[in-house]
Amino acid sequence: MILTHTKPSWIELPQTADARGVLTSIESGLDIPFEMKRVFFINHATGDRGNHAHRSTSQLIISAAGSFSVDVSTGGDWTVFQMDTRSRALFLPPMSWVRLRDFSRDAVCLVLADKRYGEASYIRDWNEFVRETASTNA
Amino acid sequence: MILTHTKPSWIELPQTADARGVLTSIESGLDIPFEMKRVFFINHATGDRGNHAHRSTSQLIISAAGSFSVDVSTGGDWTVFQMDTRSRALFLPPMSWVRLRDFSRDAVCLVLADKRYGEASYIRDWNEFVRETASTNA
Repeated sequence: MILTHTKPSWIELPQTADARGVLTSIESGLDIPFEMKRVFFINHATGDRGNHAHRSTSQLIISAAGSFSVDVSTGGDWTVFQMDTRSRALFLPPMSWVRLRDFSRDAVCLVLADKRYGEASYIRDWNEFVRETASTNA
Repeated sequence: MILTHTKPSWIELPQTADARGVLTSIESGLDIPFEMKRVFFINHATGDRGNHAHRSTSQLIISAAGSFSVDVSTGGDWTVFQMDTRSRALFLPPMSWVRLRDFSRDAVCLVLADKRYGEASYIRDWNEFVRETASTNA
């Protein structure tokens, strides 16, 4: 697999389905374009989550159960990703502003990241984010 | 955290709970005694799963939703681990025979492993497993 993802995009995940269930797997640096350093998952999500960007962290967002929506902007337009299947994941490179919303009651939002928590550099101010993307794209 | 787990055991997972939901996180090599190389999760599980051991792979099993049971043997007695909370995970060192069963309908079984799939050395025959553990423990 050629790992040349440079913008928010779907990544198909390997799955094995049989009478015993459905197994979805992700190999670090092989199925995804980074080495996993952190995994987290969110249960019982309500309202909006996210509303931030990372300056240097790449992430993969998976709906491990249920459904939700992810709005993504890299400084210009917004794209809405519907997270309602286990077979694909949303890859987010650094400088992707994300907002997660409309979680179903049974949603499990699973996130893989290439940085430890303390190393992640958050941008939580939208205007600051727009300024930084504008200067990068100039 | 001192990472000296040498037998099947619970590991408490860092959690942040507020009105927006419950976030459970795992940092590679920090909250768990290995670096993550593979992540997989199972939905719609029915009947028994597992029924094997790994010669050299360490794993962490998490109930990311719902509940199930894990029977573990390292060659002698069996221990039953009830997987019904997000706040703790089951660490399995190499040479742990596992059987997963009694999945609730909404169960999501999340597994982190320190080896890629091709590198994992399975033992799928119980008698072979007992022979190998007996020779190791001799």
